[in-house]
Amino acid sequence: MIVQLKNNVKKEQTNQLILWLQAMGVETHITEGSLHTIIGLVGDTSKLDIDMIKALEIVENVQRIQEPYKNANRMFHEDDTVIEVGGAKIGGGNFLAIAGPCSVETEEQIIEVALAVKAAGAGMLRGGAFKPRTSPYSFQGLGPEGIRLLVEAKKASGLPIVTEIMDLSQLKYFDDVDVIQIGARNMQNFELLKEMGHTGKPILLKRGLSSTLEELLMSAEYIMAGGNEQVILCERGIRTFETYTRNTLDVSAIPVLKGRTHLPIILDPSHGTGVAKYVKPMSMAAAAAGADGLIIEVHNNPARALCDGPQSLTPDAFRKLMQDVDRIVEVVRGTKA
Amino acid sequence: MIVQLKNNVKKEQTNQLILWLQAMGVETHITEGSLHTIIGLVGDTSKLDIDMIKALEIVENVQRIQEPYKNANRMFHEDDTVIEVGGAKIGGGNFLAIAGPCSVETEEQIIEVALAVKAAGAGMLRGGAFKPRTSPYSFQGLGPEGIRLLVEAKKASGLPIVTEIMDLSQLKYFDDVDVIQIGARNMQNFELLKEMGHTGKPILLKRGLSSTLEELLMSAEYIMAGGNEQVILCERGIRTFETYTRNTLDVSAIPVLKGRTHLPIILDPSHGTGVAKYVKPMSMAAAAAGADGLIIEVHNNPARALCDGPQSLTPDAFRKLMQDVDRIVEVVRGTKA
Amino acid sequence: MIVQLKNNVKKEQTNQLILWLQAMGVETHITEGSLHTIIGLVGDTSKLDIDMIKALEIVENVQRIQEPYKNANRMFHEDDTVIEVGGAKIGGGNFLAIAGPCSVETEEQIIEVALAVKAAGAGMLRGGAFKPRTSPYSFQGLGPEGIRLLVEAKKASGLPIVTEIMDLSQLKYFDDVDVIQIGARNMQNFELLKEMGHTGKPILLKRGLSSTLEELLMSAEYIMAGGNEQVILCERGIRTFETYTRNTLDVSAIPVLKGRTHLPIILDPSHGTGVAKYVKPMSMAAAAAGADGLIIEVHNNPARALCDGPQSLTPDAFRKLMQDVDRIVEVVRGTKA
Amino acid sequence: MIVQLKNNVKKEQTNQLILWLQAMGVETHITEGSLHTIIGLVGDTSKLDIDMIKALEIVENVQRIQEPYKNANRMFHEDDTVIEVGGAKIGGGNFLAIAGPCSVETEEQIIEVALAVKAAGAGMLRGGAFKPRTSPYSFQGLGPEGIRLLVEAKKASGLPIVTEIMDLSQLKYFDDVDVIQIGARNMQNFELLKEMGHTGKPILLKRGLSSTLEELLMSAEYIMAGGNEQVILCERGIRTFETYTRNTLDVSAIPVLKGRTHLPIILDPSHGTGVAKYVKPMSMAAAAAGADGLIIEVHNNPARALCDGPQSLTPDAFRKLMQDVDRIVEVVRGTKA
Repeated sequence: MIVQLKNNVKKEQTNQLILWLQAMGVETHITEGSLHTIIGLVGDTSKLDIDMIKALEIVENVQRIQEPYKNANRMFHEDDTVIEVGGAKIGGGNFLAIAGPCSVETEEQIIEVALAVKAAGAGMLRGGAFKPRTSPYSFQGLGPEGIRLLVEAKKASGLPIVTEIMDLSQLKYFDDVDVIQIGARNMQNFELLKEMGHTGKPILLKRGLSSTLEELLMSAEYIMAGGNEQVILCERGIRTFETYTRNTLDVSAIPVLKGRTHLPIILDPSHGTGVAKYVKPMSMAAAAAGADGLIIEVHNNPARALCDGPQSLTPDAFRKLMQDVDRIVEVVRGTKA
Repeated sequence: MIVQLKNNVKKEQTNQLILWLQAMGVETHITEGSLHTIIGLVGDTSKLDIDMIKALEIVENVQRIQEPYKNANRMFHEDDTVIEVGGAKIGGGNFLAIAGPCSVETEEQIIEVALAVKAAGAGMLRGGAFKPRTSPYSFQGLGPEGIRLLVEAKKASGLPIVTEIMDLSQLKYFDDVDVIQIGARNMQNFELLKEMGHTGKPILLKRGLSSTLEELLMSAEYIMAGGNEQVILCERGIRTFETYTRNTLDVSAIPVLKGRTHLPIILDPSHGTGVAKYVKPMSMAAAAAGADGLIIEVHNNPARALCDGPQSLTPDAFRKLMQDVDRIVEVVRGTKA
Repeated sequence: MIVQLKNNVKKEQTNQLILWLQAMGVETHITEGSLHTIIGLVGDTSKLDIDMIKALEIVENVQRIQEPYKNANRMFHEDDTVIEVGGAKIGGGNFLAIAGPCSVETEEQIIEVALAVKAAGAGMLRGGAFKPRTSPYSFQGLGPEGIRLLVEAKKASGLPIVTEIMDLSQLKYFDDVDVIQIGARNMQNFELLKEMGHTGKPILLKRGLSSTLEELLMSAEYIMAGGNEQVILCERGIRTFETYTRNTLDVSAIPVLKGRTHLPIILDPSHGTGVAKYVKPMSMAAAAAGADGLIIEVHNNPARALCDGPQSLTPDAFRKLMQDVDRIVEVVRGTKA
Repeated sequence: MIVQLKNNVKKEQTNQLILWLQAMGVETHITEGSLHTIIGLVGDTSKLDIDMIKALEIVENVQRIQEPYKNANRMFHEDDTVIEVGGAKIGGGNFLAIAGPCSVETEEQIIEVALAVKAAGAGMLRGGAFKPRTSPYSFQGLGPEGIRLLVEAKKASGLPIVTEIMDLSQLKYFDDVDVIQIGARNMQNFELLKEMGHTGKPILLKRGLSSTLEELLMSAEYIMAGGNEQVILCERGIRTFETYTRNTLDVSAIPVLKGRTHLPIILDPSHGTGVAKYVKPMSMAAAAAGADGLIIEVHNNPARALCDGPQSLTPDAFRKLMQDVDRIVEVVRGTKA
């Protein structure tokens, strides 16, 4: 960390600051110029409160050199984390496709989709029971009943299930859910994140619409600081000025995160683009960039879906997509040899 | 609402869609061109699920003409809403300054600040008890004890108090809080919003970092749909590419919202800029643009603040700011005459 | 196009507007509701001035249904455009890699790189002679001498060359340049675009940092309206709030543009990410998403490059990248069968 | 400037780098930690090429402490620059309103508007002769004839005139133009900027749609490095995700720029919002935040304007606006006393 002091600071004040910083357990190195004095901090600075230092009267600016996350940091955990759920593995070279409808609607629907996506090669079933909707007048999901239907589909298909939690009060319904999803709008719902640290279940953490990758890693850190190391990161599109797509899917998040963290990273091309015909090319792109998996919306009748239909694939389109994605994954594995 | 059909739709399908739309209670008007067929929907379309219509197989695109919110819409509620809290009024020509520290730290601190900001002209006291922090290693606020101290400051100063709720589990501590704040990161925490609709207390709703003004109004609509019409909207800066300020304070949100809603609108120049010396010019700008109030961070010792210090004003600076802002408010009132 | 009238418009005014629109050669269809009157315009609306209609006193809003570009529109030109330059082909299933240094520095340097990238499979040589730099104090390129050296490298390697023009006054130096590049900062330099319409040379048009894809297509339309149909579109990263990459490379631009235009589309992963180690995964992603080519910075000595070095590959890294990208291109071709 | 070295750098390499940096005329101070080595550079670093240093093999990262602009920097030029044009003054406490139509259309129109805005208190006349339009099919301005008509309006009204240049080839028509405008799309047209450095005329430099304030200052630096110190900076809205306004007018640009540069700063609320009814509140906000002036679109017949009509004021609305803005300017002047 680099602390830049204001121009007219007294020697005495500088010395006090240095003693205080050393008491926090970091080494200090001073650079005195004619215009600026700079203090370099060396050691474990991840637990220093940067805002607190910025707030000091004699400080002009503070810049971080080291990342502010530790548990999620590849620097301190070199090997890829591999997460295993009901036979499905993700990370460390294991590619996982998660598929299913936006919303769970009926038992028939969810079981039909579960069997179809399993046959096509998916390793996990997704489906919304609690749905975050912009309008209070839109369909809000089946709630606990939706989770019950997901569990039926799990029994019928053998696929582990992932579904979104929107509030801590819903946690009691998640006993039979294999992976808990934190949606983009809740990526910085810190109370929810803290509690996820104590669930013992893998967490699928989606990047917020306008969150930086550093903030995504800090939110993972919230979960991991509670003792839960099983976090799957998910890029699902960020908000930009472009209007032809619903969001801009940040494919470069994959190599950037791969370099900084050991956690698995997946992409959501369905929400990321909002358009069914872009799901395949973006799935191919994600696999080629080295993603550990995909989460894709598949519906047995896109024309009647209660929500998010425009971005859903038919089971048949999903099956063909999986075949092509598999070939890309194979090429990527070959490049590592 | 304008529904554009795909190119090769059969007459039969179009007719079925029209019958279904009419059953939803809206009038339909068809425009058939050589390339495109368009259906115009007239009537109350605010409760139509636009995503559901987009999902229909024969639909190419849907565009809204009317706003998707109703309770918050000025079209159906022409007069400004005036909210009254413990003697303080906001909206309908009443300008309210809310001030106080980022975090409540000690009883001495919060009472000292409360008395100082009251003397300077503030009508409400703010102070954080539950603090949303990006890092799990940063100070997270005093929690329930912080609220207890705020209530002490309320007794000592006579000022009503506003503080942030981060999760429904904290609601039990808010009995003596006058106005409940929903922070930017929770603007789309829909379960929290729904519950706010049943509290009977005014809600201070902050715009999300990357939320459109329409989304802000939809979140207000969540609260209002539950029966609580007392919502104060707060612009606090949006995320852009600019780096000299922490966020970009969207001053134009004031006239834009004034035209669309009857709810009061305030600005937060402290979080919006992140720099103490920009708080005054942006407060002046907000007042000049017609804001109903301001929420400003004031600390009795900025150099030692536990969080967000760089953007806090001293009580003395706040007092001078209030004097100048008052003159601006007076000019603005004059323009209406 | 949909024209929405204001609430209190007189029948007479509406009729006048309709007659005027019909005189512009479009059919009109009226939808009269209790709250709003809407006029649907059918026919060729691409040459209507939308701003002029918006400016009419009786008009509330105007929304386009049809795209505002015609020459670039796939709707009117179904087959992919294939551009051929000195033996190199791009578009319609032909994948082209363009490679070379950020700046031309010396004859030895540019010839060495040209031979290396040709051996690795590149079909065109790039190199900057006129360099757009944010600071007036940064190296601005060798200018005409840089173009002379590029032509020498073309002779030595047989590769056609592409280089950037920054101002019309430089056009006289481009006689022996095969493809003229319009950089991101000049994407809306309309005088330059118009003149490019008369050059008879293929134009490589880069998307502006904050330009929508529609604006990119409109800039292509400027060139094409002048009679030059040979435009290669290039996505090179857009400006977002993310800071771990220099820009956010919008990979979804590929399928989006593919659907809307017949022009070839390439990606620039070097400028798009700004980091050498992300160039390979993003090149793989681009190929997998269906790009027609790549433009990549390759330098014979990255450690001494005069500009943009952090994002340049060594010739050896580029050679390996080409091998893997080729495998991806093969998979993508297989999916079309 | 702070240079952070990679982890495994040899002492010899570090020493070579230090000698090289010292040869560039800056002092160096080293901080060696267990994980990172950091070199602090002290002295005039504004002419160091940061990209070149970043490109060095042993360098991990470079961060600037000092601003990269010098002529525009208030640190080296404490007093406000005052620019005087034909009797009109701007900067240093002089507030200047520039007004006129988006496009010059006819002699009658431009003279009528000129007389009206002068009577209302404007100190300079604006009007577009060369118009940057997104579509090649939109009206492109009257060109040289437009400038001739502006000059007629100048004679008739006595107001100095400002109009936009789009390309160096148009410079020959600007002899009688008092202030040359560089539009947002040309803010980084570096050849144009360089030439503006030799014109001897004041330059009105508009911020690019997605340009940071630092980039705006660097573009001013291009002009000033050529010897022309008369640069007026103009904030005219940046591109964000918000859709209710055409752009987001960054009012905070005023205090931010005031702190960093001595050049005058004005706002363009017409283009910044794109909506006539927001022009007044945003003009008030700009004045309250300390702007040195405004540039506002005024048209004698908004309903028939050939371009950008929706954001134009009538002369009467402009007259009332000026009265209220004057009162705000007065309050702001009072705060400085």
